Amino acid sequence: MVKITPEVKKIIEENPVALATVDGKCKPNVNVVSFAKIVAQDKVLITDNYMKQTRENLASSSDVCLAVWDKDWNGYKLVGQAKYFKEGEWKKFVEEMPENKDFPAK
Amino acid sequence: MVKITPEVKKIIEENPVALATVDGKCKPNVNVVSFAKIVAQDKVLITDNYMKQTRENLASSSDVCLAVWDKDWNGYKLVGQAKYFKEGEWKKFVEEMPENKDFPAK
Repeated sequence: MVKITPEVKKIIEENPVALATVDGKCKPNVNVVSFAKIVAQDKVLITDNYMKQTRENLASSSDVCLAVWDKDWNGYKLVGQAKYFKEGEWKKFVEEMPENKDFPAK
Repeated sequence: MVKITPEVKKIIEENPVALATVDGKCKPNVNVVSFAKIVAQDKVLITDNYMKQTRENLASSSDVCLAVWDKDWNGYKLVGQAKYFKEGEWKKFVEEMPENKDFPAK
């Protein structure tokens, strides 16, 4: 397990994040997400504001790749597995995030 | 075929672009590219400055998904097929792009 350093945490939380998944036919998808939160040294919490295709893709494959960069082109790529929560602790967490107050937090 | 409008062209050419591909095991990858150029109404030319994994992935699957957004979160997603040129007209084109003069244009 690679730990997410404070430097990586900062860049992920302060910039848009590109989140790539694959569909059931092995075709890639990428969407942009905001307000990603580092909630453990190896966990990124992402709110489903508007991610229909990503949500569908995660139902068939949990593999994800995440890329982030700042305005100076410093960037990182993280590879891992994602889990989609329809309820429970993390669902509650994103619903209560101030950043999500004007958006649907599914 | 969906045509790339002037509005989409502008946003693609003026912002970083997230380019998603899949590897031979159907795992997603995303990398960020700059200086994408619209070279036809349905064609985006992207320089391989630093895209090792993407290059490897395109050897096994030509499926790509491209996402782009500006600072105001206006964004687009394009889905299609990619071809990697090691020589020829488009290779020459990217080598001669002024934006690539300080970068490797593979």
